[in-house]
Amino acid sequence: MPGNKAVAYKGPGKVEIIDTDYPTFELKDGPGVNPANVGRKVPHAAILRTVATNICGSDQHMVRGRTTAPADLVLGHEITGEVVETGPDVEFIKAGDIVSVPFNISCGRCRNCKERKTGICLNVNPDRPGSAYGYVDMGGWVGGQAEYVLVPYADWNLLKFPDRDQALEKIMDLAMLSDIFPTGFHGAVTAGVGVGSTVYIAGAGPVGLAAAVGAQLLGAAVVIVGDMNADRLAQARSFGCETVDVSAGDPKDQIEQILGVPEVDCGVDAVGFEARGHGKDASHEAPATVLNSLMDITAAGGALGIPGLYVTGDPGGIDEAARHGSLSLSLGTGWAKSLSFTTGQCPVMKYNRQLMMAILYDKVQIAKAVNARAITLEDAPRGYAEFDAGAATKYVLNPNGYIKG
Amino acid sequence: MPGNKAVAYKGPGKVEIIDTDYPTFELKDGPGVNPANVGRKVPHAAILRTVATNICGSDQHMVRGRTTAPADLVLGHEITGEVVETGPDVEFIKAGDIVSVPFNISCGRCRNCKERKTGICLNVNPDRPGSAYGYVDMGGWVGGQAEYVLVPYADWNLLKFPDRDQALEKIMDLAMLSDIFPTGFHGAVTAGVGVGSTVYIAGAGPVGLAAAVGAQLLGAAVVIVGDMNADRLAQARSFGCETVDVSAGDPKDQIEQILGVPEVDCGVDAVGFEARGHGKDASHEAPATVLNSLMDITAAGGALGIPGLYVTGDPGGIDEAARHGSLSLSLGTGWAKSLSFTTGQCPVMKYNRQLMMAILYDKVQIAKAVNARAITLEDAPRGYAEFDAGAATKYVLNPNGYIKG
Amino acid sequence: MPGNKAVAYKGPGKVEIIDTDYPTFELKDGPGVNPANVGRKVPHAAILRTVATNICGSDQHMVRGRTTAPADLVLGHEITGEVVETGPDVEFIKAGDIVSVPFNISCGRCRNCKERKTGICLNVNPDRPGSAYGYVDMGGWVGGQAEYVLVPYADWNLLKFPDRDQALEKIMDLAMLSDIFPTGFHGAVTAGVGVGSTVYIAGAGPVGLAAAVGAQLLGAAVVIVGDMNADRLAQARSFGCETVDVSAGDPKDQIEQILGVPEVDCGVDAVGFEARGHGKDASHEAPATVLNSLMDITAAGGALGIPGLYVTGDPGGIDEAARHGSLSLSLGTGWAKSLSFTTGQCPVMKYNRQLMMAILYDKVQIAKAVNARAITLEDAPRGYAEFDAGAATKYVLNPNGYIKG
Amino acid sequence: MPGNKAVAYKGPGKVEIIDTDYPTFELKDGPGVNPANVGRKVPHAAILRTVATNICGSDQHMVRGRTTAPADLVLGHEITGEVVETGPDVEFIKAGDIVSVPFNISCGRCRNCKERKTGICLNVNPDRPGSAYGYVDMGGWVGGQAEYVLVPYADWNLLKFPDRDQALEKIMDLAMLSDIFPTGFHGAVTAGVGVGSTVYIAGAGPVGLAAAVGAQLLGAAVVIVGDMNADRLAQARSFGCETVDVSAGDPKDQIEQILGVPEVDCGVDAVGFEARGHGKDASHEAPATVLNSLMDITAAGGALGIPGLYVTGDPGGIDEAARHGSLSLSLGTGWAKSLSFTTGQCPVMKYNRQLMMAILYDKVQIAKAVNARAITLEDAPRGYAEFDAGAATKYVLNPNGYIKG
Repeated sequence: MPGNKAVAYKGPGKVEIIDTDYPTFELKDGPGVNPANVGRKVPHAAILRTVATNICGSDQHMVRGRTTAPADLVLGHEITGEVVETGPDVEFIKAGDIVSVPFNISCGRCRNCKERKTGICLNVNPDRPGSAYGYVDMGGWVGGQAEYVLVPYADWNLLKFPDRDQALEKIMDLAMLSDIFPTGFHGAVTAGVGVGSTVYIAGAGPVGLAAAVGAQLLGAAVVIVGDMNADRLAQARSFGCETVDVSAGDPKDQIEQILGVPEVDCGVDAVGFEARGHGKDASHEAPATVLNSLMDITAAGGALGIPGLYVTGDPGGIDEAARHGSLSLSLGTGWAKSLSFTTGQCPVMKYNRQLMMAILYDKVQIAKAVNARAITLEDAPRGYAEFDAGAATKYVLNPNGYIKG
Repeated sequence: MPGNKAVAYKGPGKVEIIDTDYPTFELKDGPGVNPANVGRKVPHAAILRTVATNICGSDQHMVRGRTTAPADLVLGHEITGEVVETGPDVEFIKAGDIVSVPFNISCGRCRNCKERKTGICLNVNPDRPGSAYGYVDMGGWVGGQAEYVLVPYADWNLLKFPDRDQALEKIMDLAMLSDIFPTGFHGAVTAGVGVGSTVYIAGAGPVGLAAAVGAQLLGAAVVIVGDMNADRLAQARSFGCETVDVSAGDPKDQIEQILGVPEVDCGVDAVGFEARGHGKDASHEAPATVLNSLMDITAAGGALGIPGLYVTGDPGGIDEAARHGSLSLSLGTGWAKSLSFTTGQCPVMKYNRQLMMAILYDKVQIAKAVNARAITLEDAPRGYAEFDAGAATKYVLNPNGYIKG
Repeated sequence: MPGNKAVAYKGPGKVEIIDTDYPTFELKDGPGVNPANVGRKVPHAAILRTVATNICGSDQHMVRGRTTAPADLVLGHEITGEVVETGPDVEFIKAGDIVSVPFNISCGRCRNCKERKTGICLNVNPDRPGSAYGYVDMGGWVGGQAEYVLVPYADWNLLKFPDRDQALEKIMDLAMLSDIFPTGFHGAVTAGVGVGSTVYIAGAGPVGLAAAVGAQLLGAAVVIVGDMNADRLAQARSFGCETVDVSAGDPKDQIEQILGVPEVDCGVDAVGFEARGHGKDASHEAPATVLNSLMDITAAGGALGIPGLYVTGDPGGIDEAARHGSLSLSLGTGWAKSLSFTTGQCPVMKYNRQLMMAILYDKVQIAKAVNARAITLEDAPRGYAEFDAGAATKYVLNPNGYIKG
Repeated sequence: MPGNKAVAYKGPGKVEIIDTDYPTFELKDGPGVNPANVGRKVPHAAILRTVATNICGSDQHMVRGRTTAPADLVLGHEITGEVVETGPDVEFIKAGDIVSVPFNISCGRCRNCKERKTGICLNVNPDRPGSAYGYVDMGGWVGGQAEYVLVPYADWNLLKFPDRDQALEKIMDLAMLSDIFPTGFHGAVTAGVGVGSTVYIAGAGPVGLAAAVGAQLLGAAVVIVGDMNADRLAQARSFGCETVDVSAGDPKDQIEQILGVPEVDCGVDAVGFEARGHGKDASHEAPATVLNSLMDITAAGGALGIPGLYVTGDPGGIDEAARHGSLSLSLGTGWAKSLSFTTGQCPVMKYNRQLMMAILYDKVQIAKAVNARAITLEDAPRGYAEFDAGAATKYVLNPNGYIKG
């Protein structure tokens, strides 16, 4: 049985490569594993050799110490792999398949899964609906920033790519199907983006850029991305977006210069609870800034898609309210404009097959848009650090050498 | 030319019957009229003799002095009438028609009206999208708690009842089509209520009761209404709702006793910004209580319909944040459950024809459900006072004696 | 191991009770079993002791000899049961659960199942998308008009009733969840029925009556049912429908007498390919009659829900075109009115949970509406004969004595 | 008062330029004018000086003598113009505006218009719902292939371009907003096209090509266009479509060569009732060919968008059934696959604003895709003849010289 090197959280600001066990078809205890899941049999699972596994902005919340994640938690929920072994209940997925793993773990048997709400599956996380690999308070499923990873309910969860060679050739694009491409796309969809829409996306990190690509794919007339990081804004411009530098002042004025009106049809929050202020307040956290700004910017009758993460508690919050996950929102502004709001994890399975088709038929270049770069597993700590420092790069770990060039 | 007695706001806590001018096809200056609307020609308008005009909970915000409404503003946006005169541009509506007037004024020519978003029409209120009769900051269209009222864009706005005699016979039900029935129904629709849903409605005032009726009409399995007013809760039970007394503690526990689980599929906020606390906090205002409670009560994957009014500024707010319309919301709770939220005025025209059909074919008894009672125009001050004191009654003014018995 | 008495098709006009094998977790050869399914392992299956299993109008197509069904094919796809045994892969369903079985067999793993299109599952019928128990050309899954039945992919397919005693008490209603209630409801939904709609349903057999109940549950203002069988029309009137006797002439005129206009908003075809003519043509088959009539009756902008079965070949068709499944349709009439059409098997899992809730909370009396009557398994031949002769009765077989009184 | 040269139908195969009257704000009698519309006052109308007016495939049905159109009927329903005069009821549209005219005439006051179903307006055509300029049996509104044209309900119907200079610069693209771009887009939308879809479009005439552009704009992975005209197929390939030559045999086989599977997700019928057979039957009419083929080609669970025109009577039909508008359809094939079908005129106002945005922000090159070419009004007869002969060209008449170069 092979070993299994993995990227682990070791404490605030610190990730390391550690040796872990090769997965088995029964869940074992470990850092962050929910006791109720210990000993759970998973004959429906597949074991994957990791082809690509990306560092995600939401991993950074843990790494920055903004959560209760325990030391030695293995990170990673953006996973693409080759199936090496399947449990006895797996019928359609086969060893050798190259597959994308939705970051939400779901059972395919509960009411929510049947209603396509796989982000809030009722059977995988004993604490509450919804789960993910390698994430605090999500049931304790071991993360995929590793050489091997276990995927339960494999026939349900895995998206098989139709052709192995084609998949490996387009792997940098396909690697985005496990999380950020569907997540950004979901942000655009729930913001009501359609053909001819004008769109403002707050945040030019990978999810914001993926939302921008998603909005373009949905036929948006104009996609405007706001951030205060010049490199990330340049990245947004590289594929046809307009940009707003929120450190230079209120986005509203800059939007008016672009569109002739100070409003957009659709707003996307790709920032979440670690938001900072705008203009002269850009240097410190102000967790309600993005949502209040979007309510101001979005035209009456519009919608806000909110893929950016908001939490129920934040040990590092700026004040008592923030530490309890409360935000001071100008809801009256939104009400007067009849806005609607959609929050929550993207249910990846609702979108990943169709986005795969768009990639396979060359309708979209998501890897280029988010500036994806492959690095070795061993380089993960550097990737985390650079990403946290604001690099306009999406880091893709390549633990088994599948990714060439 | 006849005179035109009307109900006017005279100052906090005070409404009076005053003499006003009979409407004309050109807008005149007056209390609360937007200067940009003065002199506006309305050849597309109809003048109605009022058949029924209801006192609305949102009128109470003005009457309590919680807005900047000026003295002598004529109140009333829930209007049913007989057409007595039409402007030269009116083609399909005729004198003698008995009609329902959507409380939202809309032009039928702008982008939003064409998209059925008549609550945010772009052409009737010079200040911002959306308008209403007899309401502060809504353009200054004169209210309908009067003997006569002017309705612009009559061919677009008016819903004609198919038969005059039938209409007058069912007038107490049909009078609810101008606002509360569609508004409550919109709350239920945007909360995602469908066949078999479990529903919690916060607030057993007329809009809450109308939301409950709407939820039943949509096929809900269980409708639970929460309030702290025993009479209003009894009213809810009278047509088959379950009830929760929020003064007795957290609604969650009472919901569990009813359903066996502490959650519902769908949540409706029929309270708005003047909410009070729950349990022992029920005696004082706590504007975010209802929304935070609904996020707690609504199951993952659910939706919140928010017909209850939230404002951008509230001179009577309990603290600085409330005075600026900011609410301290536990958005993280909602985000973890993938909730969605829909705010704003109900676009009445999206629903009024179909709800009229349900009334005309005896599928629903909305007047009985909200305990509608007709009173004279002169009795309006008493109606306002009793309603403000918590009467479980929907007051319908009867200025011209159309309503019999 | 117990025996397993079952109802089998023996030839045109003939059904008999036969002895069959108790189910096993591997598919065996037999009448109508697709060779590619022989030997298929089904560790994900459950074996049910049948609680209720209904005779369906679509069974009659086989029994009348209008299909290529082989002799000894065990009939029955409307199944409710108690779980007696589960395969090793079954995780959530347990022995003792009382469950409803959707008549569509689906895998819960393919693209179509993930998109909620369980009527066209890709993995259960080797011939083509879609499958059912006890039906010709549907893969050969053994029918459920028997003492015991095997249900594959049990965690996915089965709808568990929350409480055993409550379930047995309401069993006659709950027995309709496996097919006709969702099927009729789907007809109403796809016909666009909503609050306030006017609806015409062609056919007052069990599916037509279930569509009528479904339309009422969706809030329809008026539901009109057409047939030429006086008993079935009386049954429709028993729960508040209007009726049209199509043997008395064109439904259009009778609709006008009811509604004042000769048109409805929504049309449902609950008849299918064995339709007869209207008026003086009512005595002979005219397979396009219902669809052409519905295009005529449905108002511009309306929709047609078509749960009635149309086939690709009909050995008993009235002419060459009918034998090849071709219909002479006045599509131009539909096109001029911008009608839309939805065909196909109802995807039961999209509706059965919510309809169960409506039954459990007493919002609907489906068993009474379709005049459900329990008979013994041995009486099945009589049930088939009476149903074929036009009895206004839904026959529910009671093979194991669960149904009392 | 200026004169008004116009293109008129003179008899089968014959169109001529004739002198007609300048429009007035009261409808006059004339060829094809419905008597009930004679004398109708239209103070809500605008008179446009025509900027661009296109020859449409549906005009050809009349010109070929396949309808009951009378001689001297002025043709033309694809109209873009400059407002020169407005009736007294017009409030928002002003002289000098450059506007697109939806080919459907609608009132903006009836139930259907309020529900966005402007293709079946109840108030403009005394015969039946729905109307159009210059078309037989559509109420008799005078066509727009003329120097001037009258547009009723101008505030409702007209889409104003935001900037005159920009509009004239992009006029060849914007001219497609009056009909074929929305019509093709509607075909794609109602066929269920979304991100990642595979699509087959029957017919490479202008509507088929517009449907292909629409499908691309909606994010389709692959768009396949079928026709038997080599030039039109080349035109489809010019903007990235795959093509199928239906004269070479069954489209199914050619689709399999392109996709690896013989099926698509979505099917569009951009041909209509004058369809011809496939393969060796391609030389003669076979009106049901396209629909039967699409049912065969479209995968289970798919949808068919049917913008191609089907009529209630066709004097030139190949047989008795065709002359009465009946088609021999294999509906059983569609039913077994759970297909849905959407027919009818495109409600242009549902799409034209958003498609305008896509044009103005350079997201789409519709004029190039359909090979639009401007010709003089005098050249219209030649344009009709070339188009009828199969030219892969969309002819745009330029009656007043607005179109330069």
